Amino acid sequence: MLVSVILAAGKGTRMRSDLPKVLHPLLGVPILEHVLDTVEALGPQLKVVVVGYKHTDVEESFPGRDIRWSLQADQLGTAHAANCGVEAAAAEISANPDAQVLVVNGDLPLLRVETLKALSAIHREADAAVTILTCEKADPTGYGRIIRDAQGRVRDIVEENDATEAEKRLREINVGAYVFRGGAFLGFYARIGRDNAQGELYLTDVVVKAAQAGTRVSSFKVADEAEVAQVNSRIELARVTDILRTRLLDEYMRSGVTIYDPRTTYIEKGVRIGRDTHILPFTMIEHGVEIGSGCEIGPFTHLRPGTRLDDGASIGNFVEIKNSKVGHDSKVRHLSYVGDGLIGQKVNIGAGTIFANYDGKVKSTTVVEDEAFVGSGTVLVAPVTVGKGAITGAGSVVLKNRNVPAGGVAVGVPAQLLKEGKGSSNSRS
Amino acid sequence: MLVSVILAAGKGTRMRSDLPKVLHPLLGVPILEHVLDTVEALGPQLKVVVVGYKHTDVEESFPGRDIRWSLQADQLGTAHAANCGVEAAAAEISANPDAQVLVVNGDLPLLRVETLKALSAIHREADAAVTILTCEKADPTGYGRIIRDAQGRVRDIVEENDATEAEKRLREINVGAYVFRGGAFLGFYARIGRDNAQGELYLTDVVVKAAQAGTRVSSFKVADEAEVAQVNSRIELARVTDILRTRLLDEYMRSGVTIYDPRTTYIEKGVRIGRDTHILPFTMIEHGVEIGSGCEIGPFTHLRPGTRLDDGASIGNFVEIKNSKVGHDSKVRHLSYVGDGLIGQKVNIGAGTIFANYDGKVKSTTVVEDEAFVGSGTVLVAPVTVGKGAITGAGSVVLKNRNVPAGGVAVGVPAQLLKEGKGSSNSRS
Amino acid sequence: MLVSVILAAGKGTRMRSDLPKVLHPLLGVPILEHVLDTVEALGPQLKVVVVGYKHTDVEESFPGRDIRWSLQADQLGTAHAANCGVEAAAAEISANPDAQVLVVNGDLPLLRVETLKALSAIHREADAAVTILTCEKADPTGYGRIIRDAQGRVRDIVEENDATEAEKRLREINVGAYVFRGGAFLGFYARIGRDNAQGELYLTDVVVKAAQAGTRVSSFKVADEAEVAQVNSRIELARVTDILRTRLLDEYMRSGVTIYDPRTTYIEKGVRIGRDTHILPFTMIEHGVEIGSGCEIGPFTHLRPGTRLDDGASIGNFVEIKNSKVGHDSKVRHLSYVGDGLIGQKVNIGAGTIFANYDGKVKSTTVVEDEAFVGSGTVLVAPVTVGKGAITGAGSVVLKNRNVPAGGVAVGVPAQLLKEGKGSSNSRS
Repeated sequence: MLVSVILAAGKGTRMRSDLPKVLHPLLGVPILEHVLDTVEALGPQLKVVVVGYKHTDVEESFPGRDIRWSLQADQLGTAHAANCGVEAAAAEISANPDAQVLVVNGDLPLLRVETLKALSAIHREADAAVTILTCEKADPTGYGRIIRDAQGRVRDIVEENDATEAEKRLREINVGAYVFRGGAFLGFYARIGRDNAQGELYLTDVVVKAAQAGTRVSSFKVADEAEVAQVNSRIELARVTDILRTRLLDEYMRSGVTIYDPRTTYIEKGVRIGRDTHILPFTMIEHGVEIGSGCEIGPFTHLRPGTRLDDGASIGNFVEIKNSKVGHDSKVRHLSYVGDGLIGQKVNIGAGTIFANYDGKVKSTTVVEDEAFVGSGTVLVAPVTVGKGAITGAGSVVLKNRNVPAGGVAVGVPAQLLKEGKGSSNSRS
Repeated sequence: MLVSVILAAGKGTRMRSDLPKVLHPLLGVPILEHVLDTVEALGPQLKVVVVGYKHTDVEESFPGRDIRWSLQADQLGTAHAANCGVEAAAAEISANPDAQVLVVNGDLPLLRVETLKALSAIHREADAAVTILTCEKADPTGYGRIIRDAQGRVRDIVEENDATEAEKRLREINVGAYVFRGGAFLGFYARIGRDNAQGELYLTDVVVKAAQAGTRVSSFKVADEAEVAQVNSRIELARVTDILRTRLLDEYMRSGVTIYDPRTTYIEKGVRIGRDTHILPFTMIEHGVEIGSGCEIGPFTHLRPGTRLDDGASIGNFVEIKNSKVGHDSKVRHLSYVGDGLIGQKVNIGAGTIFANYDGKVKSTTVVEDEAFVGSGTVLVAPVTVGKGAITGAGSVVLKNRNVPAGGVAVGVPAQLLKEGKGSSNSRS
Repeated sequence: MLVSVILAAGKGTRMRSDLPKVLHPLLGVPILEHVLDTVEALGPQLKVVVVGYKHTDVEESFPGRDIRWSLQADQLGTAHAANCGVEAAAAEISANPDAQVLVVNGDLPLLRVETLKALSAIHREADAAVTILTCEKADPTGYGRIIRDAQGRVRDIVEENDATEAEKRLREINVGAYVFRGGAFLGFYARIGRDNAQGELYLTDVVVKAAQAGTRVSSFKVADEAEVAQVNSRIELARVTDILRTRLLDEYMRSGVTIYDPRTTYIEKGVRIGRDTHILPFTMIEHGVEIGSGCEIGPFTHLRPGTRLDDGASIGNFVEIKNSKVGHDSKVRHLSYVGDGLIGQKVNIGAGTIFANYDGKVKSTTVVEDEAFVGSGTVLVAPVTVGKGAITGAGSVVLKNRNVPAGGVAVGVPAQLLKEGKGSSNSRS
């Protein structure tokens, strides 16, 4: 049995923000969501998140997600936070004292699933009371240092503020991810105190008590230093964003997507892109967008949530698309805003077209059916439909509900039907 | 007493430009302005700038600034340039021979105020005749090398062209910033000659004469190599721009601004940004722009000089704003140009709106009052006012002086009032 | 006599693409074109390209170019591919057995002309049977290692898969460019076999046979590791793009172009830019564009093939130009699409102007003559002409063939002549 406990109670003072640290966005989703997704991939039977600062805001950011929230009312240190999490799982752990309790700091969004899997596997194989994740850092400043005995066993973990000069030179650091044997945690937690520079209950002291008691403390050393980067400030958030952005772009390229210029391509988490799609420079693609194969995206393109592009779609040059579907082989190539649109196949949306989806009160949908040709500088006022193969004239303003029938031609401000077409409009009242 | 002398007379041949080197723009202001601002922060009683190549262009670039310009008619070397500066301050210095004369090359825009303060303090504490700024560089090629005696005192400075192979291996270099005791400069200047590879009067030789005379030559070594980067070519200008850009972005992040992607965020010198404002990718913000708290800027946004955004304003997606004010909680979200505009609070500027501020002869102002709703694809021909809570229809063209009254609704090309509203327009003649 | 043979037969499986590797675009032209251009600069009497995978697609990508295509029907290894090339030049080589045969892999787009010139010169001076290009790499993993004897002569080349651990530690690698004495190649080719890890005919084995036979094998070591980067995957393609992009930008800056932010400036191969032109951030300039002196380009600008800007043109802020000429001192500054346009001198194109060049079937030309003023939000439906000094009103839609005469003023949707002007329109029927 695996119980996961994520520590997400802190304010994050160095962010200098009113927003709790774990809610700051990182490639389209809160920092905490990255950690949650990673932990969830391990398949824990129970997921606990310990919250404190603005806990309601944090809880409400994850609606419908299977999380047991645990409130840490006072900020008495990481051990206290972990204990809040363990108490929330008290029933499960007492029924199953050998359960693994994975405790992870909520500000470690770059940790990989494979790393936590290895941590858990080593804990199981070693039949350890505690297993900690460590890393050799080129510059360990600010991190707790791992002190090992002559046999290489973890003997102590010393925080920066409590470390001697010799200890500060050690480069192996404590990452902030641990597996405890459920039954063992509480016993060692009861023995720790607050006699340190910060006057806090350190989670690392729980580890040290376990080591001092002679129980088995094992460890796993993660190789890639980038994986353990913490977010404590906005500068660190920007750095972490850059590492994760590059990691995701590399995955797209390996899967057969061409990215002309990774430096100027900003793709958030959770985007799907098909093979042989080309992403040109100056492109931003937000969380959850889906893009087919053989598409051309960019330059100067912003695809927002809810966008789905079928194979062969071509979008670019100062084009923003939001909550819309663009069909097979359709083109939106110049200076357009498509919001709440349903665009069929082989549609040509002319330069300077605006889908006016918002009337100041509600947002409505615009439909452009297959093979329609929307002329340059057209404004389509939603809700409205441009029928199959229909044409709008340059600079026309198609008013709401003044649908253009299939095969019809509408021109002017407001647009009038020049040619009735072969279809029928729904609502030309 | 402190007299500052900035050397800005050179053409900068390697720039391959008709523009004097010190006038090339660096994050929105001339290179020289960066050095001037830094020097000015020391509070000198007198600021001299030595000019030569296209000196009128240089002087006219700093109107109304308290500078004493000194013309170096012939380019006889850095010592000659410095002497031109000292002569311009001859009256002050002869009245106050212990005055500090700070001489700084005009192509060192990354020098920090703190560094020059330290240079000046060391000069004073050491009661030195000369104090020079030095730096250890990983690659010292091209710089003058500092030669010290066994006691560590500066004994010589050797230019690259005059250096032996052994001297070329020295990594401590002469930066190009000095403090002289005013009365001492002229004496040592009189003793130097032009017997070197370039046949020039080197300012470094003044330092060497002082050292040879047994007077006190002290030095301050700046730690950050990036701070001493010179601009001699456009490639170096681009490199210096990048260093300074990153330095400024780090300052914004430390103060509580979120910058999603520093690589694609280009913010010039002298911009104010409030806390918890988010800067999205692909954003350029020019010199002097002011942005409130809790704003969202970008992606794909260009804010030009004279722009002021109140708290909560939201600007982005192919939007350019110039010399305009945008009020609290107002939005300009898509494909718009706002030039010479005064936008009130809670205004919504629809996608594809153009403020047509220029009629080919003069530029005029457009006013959009609180809570107005400007429909998609509207052209507002300045001067014109859209009143409080007024609405313009999609694709409407509001002609100049055809103001839309408060609460009114205007539609069509040209726009006609559909609804009179509750206010009155000034000029519907 | 020089015969060049470029090896371009492979599929490039790791690209995960249906497009042959050498056709993937790199700064605006296929990877192979970069290698072709470099080789062509050496002035070979005969240029052979060996093709295989989708060879018709490859051949058709270089219409009108003086290339002798040689088909490698089966993929039996690099030696077999080179032999296909040599056979295609059999007549020339048998007439001239001392001819140099330069064999270059088609996936080495960063090789410099100077490097291949040096390779060829060393081959000639050494009167060698074979001369190979080598490089010391910081990380040689994946490359064939150069094995030298005690005298420093090339004795062997060992592929990664066949290398011992000791050999893997050697850092001098085989780049993939060779010069053979024409008459010698065939003799040594006949002696090689396929007893290696891949079961292929290695071109390196031809070199080794020559060395073993005691003939002269010389080499040239290229200093810049970046020059020998291969393209085997899209990640490597992105890396190579970045190196080449930076190399080209440095050349522009050295020649007197200011580039504000090289990180966000994407200029393809084969672009001309005049002195003292400024390129602002967020700019993409495609293959073949020509830009005069003293222009201002950007920010947020996309110049596509066929664009020519005269001196002093100013383009920027969400502007795309395709296959158009913009005259001296003309401005297109905001949110415009100019396609198939001929714009004269001192023209002002207002914000939000669209050149509607495509009617769904054909593309047509729009002419805007000297000193015309196109009002904000104008749509010009091609083919159409706006005459010298003519004006279009804000939001006007000028229909096709409804030319605005010189000095005329046209307003409205569709545009009507307010003022006849002094010229005559061609087709106001």
